[in-house]
Amino acid sequence: MDVERLDRQFAFCQEIDKEKTISRMTYISDGTRRENDAEHAWHAALMAVLLAEYSNEPIDIARTMTMLLLHDLVEIDAGDAFAYDPEAQAVQHDKEVRAADRIFGLLPEDQRAYFRGLWEEFEDGTSPEARFARVMDNLQPLMLNAMQDGRLWREQGVALRQVLERNRRTPAGSKTLWEYARQSFIQPNVHAGNIKDES
Amino acid sequence: MDVERLDRQFAFCQEIDKEKTISRMTYISDGTRRENDAEHAWHAALMAVLLAEYSNEPIDIARTMTMLLLHDLVEIDAGDAFAYDPEAQAVQHDKEVRAADRIFGLLPEDQRAYFRGLWEEFEDGTSPEARFARVMDNLQPLMLNAMQDGRLWREQGVALRQVLERNRRTPAGSKTLWEYARQSFIQPNVHAGNIKDES
Repeated sequence: MDVERLDRQFAFCQEIDKEKTISRMTYISDGTRRENDAEHAWHAALMAVLLAEYSNEPIDIARTMTMLLLHDLVEIDAGDAFAYDPEAQAVQHDKEVRAADRIFGLLPEDQRAYFRGLWEEFEDGTSPEARFARVMDNLQPLMLNAMQDGRLWREQGVALRQVLERNRRTPAGSKTLWEYARQSFIQPNVHAGNIKDES
Repeated sequence: MDVERLDRQFAFCQEIDKEKTISRMTYISDGTRRENDAEHAWHAALMAVLLAEYSNEPIDIARTMTMLLLHDLVEIDAGDAFAYDPEAQAVQHDKEVRAADRIFGLLPEDQRAYFRGLWEEFEDGTSPEARFARVMDNLQPLMLNAMQDGRLWREQGVALRQVLERNRRTPAGSKTLWEYARQSFIQPNVHAGNIKDES
């Protein structure tokens, strides 16, 4: 038993527990509170398995799920930047790179390189898996917001152009899911005035 | 676009959001609150990828992660039965079977059969993936309890024989991780009196 290797792996397993305390803007579906990053990652990873048939390209589902499970670990240090807050988004990337150095650096070197690589792949969208994982990352909060009659969009005064900008790469991962999300989640909330249409 | 199929899949994706409201006994590592089933499933699934090298048998990691992501969905209806409460455990299985009928029944038939089958496989421990997934299901709360100097074990008056009984199948999934857990998480808490040793 390589105790030093196991100790490093468990130091990481213990550190990531903090993701449960990182709050996002999105409300859970009963509206009682906002969700946290760990819950979001769980939901998005399970949706990836359920909806993989709609990926534009064939994907390795284990890589896709792993990416989704770890994509927000950097927010343990960097915090969550609201998708529709451009100032917060602008400084977020540098904070996340420093967080990735520290958090993935807890792992043994072979695993540090592999899991950090998966995070970078997700960030850069440079593989079919990353492109589909990002669809899940955007689709999950869209679905939750729509389930609550657009409450978050109303509260934050979100405009249609912001939702479309946020999802500009969604069709590159799944044309079908983007079309479904437009019809089922976005358009009804534009018509109801929950998402502002300034055009 | 098969809208009827997509509607069923999204009805399931929406229903499972309720798992975020199912509380477990285990505290998150900062001790401020108990964790919920969605957070536990996220943590256990990510630990499975990190620790897969210690499985006694080769495993398909995608199946293992999927099992862990969905293993507690039945608790949306059945609630969480504390691992060390024998009366709650005794009636839990029947409740969970009825919950599985309803919740997996939301899916299109092919996916209902596949995902319900994975849940049954996990429950029965009938595959290498299920045996390793159950190691994660038990190891994750052991680790969290140990991180908090055995607070939950003390509060609940848990005895060593109960911890060993709960983990009686852990060595069948991973001899190495069981040995590490005994040395790093269980024995120090027995010595400190946080886990009662009645022998």
